[in-house]
Amino acid sequence: MQVVHISFIGGSIGDWRITAAQTLRGASLPTAAFLTRKEGFEQPTAPPAWHLRGFTSNLRYTTASEAAELAGRQAPLGRSDSRLAALIPIRKSEAWWALGQDERRAIYEERSRHTSIGMEYLPRIARKLHHSRDLGEPFDFLTWFEFGEADAGAFDELVGRLRSTEEWQYVDREVDLRLARVV
Amino acid sequence: MQVVHISFIGGSIGDWRITAAQTLRGASLPTAAFLTRKEGFEQPTAPPAWHLRGFTSNLRYTTASEAAELAGRQAPLGRSDSRLAALIPIRKSEAWWALGQDERRAIYEERSRHTSIGMEYLPRIARKLHHSRDLGEPFDFLTWFEFGEADAGAFDELVGRLRSTEEWQYVDREVDLRLARVV
Repeated sequence: MQVVHISFIGGSIGDWRITAAQTLRGASLPTAAFLTRKEGFEQPTAPPAWHLRGFTSNLRYTTASEAAELAGRQAPLGRSDSRLAALIPIRKSEAWWALGQDERRAIYEERSRHTSIGMEYLPRIARKLHHSRDLGEPFDFLTWFEFGEADAGAFDELVGRLRSTEEWQYVDREVDLRLARVV
Repeated sequence: MQVVHISFIGGSIGDWRITAAQTLRGASLPTAAFLTRKEGFEQPTAPPAWHLRGFTSNLRYTTASEAAELAGRQAPLGRSDSRLAALIPIRKSEAWWALGQDERRAIYEERSRHTSIGMEYLPRIARKLHHSRDLGEPFDFLTWFEFGEADAGAFDELVGRLRSTEEWQYVDREVDLRLARVV
């Protein structure tokens, strides 16, 4: 539950090659060939195409029993056989943020089954949520996923299911970057 | 629900005179004579005694019905007859942040009545919560209150009641600064 500050930097160098970029809603991101994910908010010396900042933090909707189930199933980042990744920055509407905590939880899990759906893809799809909105950044969340080539189809299925939920009606900006590990 | 970045700066100048400083738990803050509360994270030109950063954000525990009741009762900051204020920076333990959302909500409201207790003092005590933990700051919350001299006793009663709750067993650092408006 420790707070860790993370930068995602798009540019001409990086640990991940950007293999596809799709803008689903709202404004796109400038084109970049490579991506770096690193701790801290400092920009690299080469001027990047874009620099998105986020932080890992405490759970916002997950109950203790859901957290225990996730902890028993989920995989860490950096697995040697996870050669593919996705960065999906998301922004939600003002209408979402104006809802009460109980209303957001009900949409998120009781009606959209966000945690339950994600759980089906563990440990195949490793995932990490980074919060971004409170920094005054252009996106609210920077969602990150790592998986092997055999699970690329499962990942497409996962994001397709989430995008069809009631929760996603509150998403007003979404970019989907697919990545392949360079080294 | 808009995110606004706010600085609290202790030093030799400021809009508020620090009339009392009490450290209830954990490390104290360096001594300062005055305090400024302002938007943004930039330090003033004079080197401050301390500089705490926070942000207003969406509700984390409050339900829609509680939010509606609060909105109907609460007062804005900056009332001309609110000559007194308090800044109470608070940090909670790792044990608190490791709890599930349902467990934190149960302690916060169902068992400690945090919102319900605060509601009793509206609109006499105007209040604003600033989150700080996700910035990597030394405190998790910067809580701010404004009130008139006639309500100083009520404010002492309010903080005394909150400090006796189960929720406060998770507070591991707390400093209480009392302030009087300079101009």
